[in-house]
Amino acid sequence: MVTKGEETRAAVLGHAIALASELGLEGVTIGLLADRAGMSKSGLFAHFKSKESLQLAILEETLSRFVQSVVLPALKKPRGEPRVRALFERWLDFACDMPGGCIVVQAMAELDDRPGPVRDRLEAAQRDWLDTLATAIRIAKEEGHFEARIAPEQLAYEIAALAHGHHLISRMLRDPEADARVRRGFDRLLRQARAAD
Amino acid sequence: MVTKGEETRAAVLGHAIALASELGLEGVTIGLLADRAGMSKSGLFAHFKSKESLQLAILEETLSRFVQSVVLPALKKPRGEPRVRALFERWLDFACDMPGGCIVVQAMAELDDRPGPVRDRLEAAQRDWLDTLATAIRIAKEEGHFEARIAPEQLAYEIAALAHGHHLISRMLRDPEADARVRRGFDRLLRQARAAD
Repeated sequence: MVTKGEETRAAVLGHAIALASELGLEGVTIGLLADRAGMSKSGLFAHFKSKESLQLAILEETLSRFVQSVVLPALKKPRGEPRVRALFERWLDFACDMPGGCIVVQAMAELDDRPGPVRDRLEAAQRDWLDTLATAIRIAKEEGHFEARIAPEQLAYEIAALAHGHHLISRMLRDPEADARVRRGFDRLLRQARAAD
Repeated sequence: MVTKGEETRAAVLGHAIALASELGLEGVTIGLLADRAGMSKSGLFAHFKSKESLQLAILEETLSRFVQSVVLPALKKPRGEPRVRALFERWLDFACDMPGGCIVVQAMAELDDRPGPVRDRLEAAQRDWLDTLATAIRIAKEEGHFEARIAPEQLAYEIAALAHGHHLISRMLRDPEADARVRRGFDRLLRQARAAD
């Protein structure tokens, strides 16, 4: 059963995610969020205690949505190349659905030099994402979709870097070609990975 | 001849670039910079007028260093693949030499949603970089180093995205393997582009 407190918290986190997408995780303050959510600052402090715990809550909620809309549906795809492709396609959709850009990609740029629990959580999430990709690639080798010589960690790194870099560049340039370009880049990576017939 | 005012400005910009690398372009304030440079806030206002003009000056100085240490030396390399490679290698060195990460990559994440002259300058710089890469690739086709079917803008996009994404990921993970991974990714892109013997 969802309590009233949990409902409020979920609604506030929705506003907080929209703010973080526009302003970056560092830009979200309890004051701005209070305005956006139509609540008092003291009410928000009761929910989030500090700016750091608010940032952690935003990040945790974003990562949980990421698992829901990227990882879990991809795991339902057939083992092998279809699953690798689903992880990539769904990542693109997920990042593009945030109107101000992906919170996680932006936070990586912002927080790389600021030790603490928010950075730790971001780092762990990034490792998890690379592991998820590498595992899907390893399975694609087992299924005979990809060549035996393919190194899963290497290909996972190339896919993740291409997608992250694309997100940064395409959001700056607002170039309608960018989406087609990153997909061609990804297709080329898969073509190379595929077992020679 | 360099005037005293120009000398001071150059010294202050050195401090400002170091601060921006740590804190992001948005994190640099005239107050913080005054502390770092050992100057008065009013003295700095005389040089930079506003936070926006300070940001523009930092960005302009960074881009001018980029041209000096990446683009110009690469243009002295032989036409073709060596020049494409030099652009990539020097970009990596340039970005890694900023102890807090590349100002330009970070600013792309920060400022993508904030219209204004700083964003405009960043966007133009990003277009210039893609054009520089695409031109070097076009020349490599003319020289017969790369296959005729290679689309210069596409390959330029893949190289730039890989490098930008690598910068974000490697700074988060502090993974000693990351440098080797991005180089392998780049080598693979070039191998595919190369004319079949």
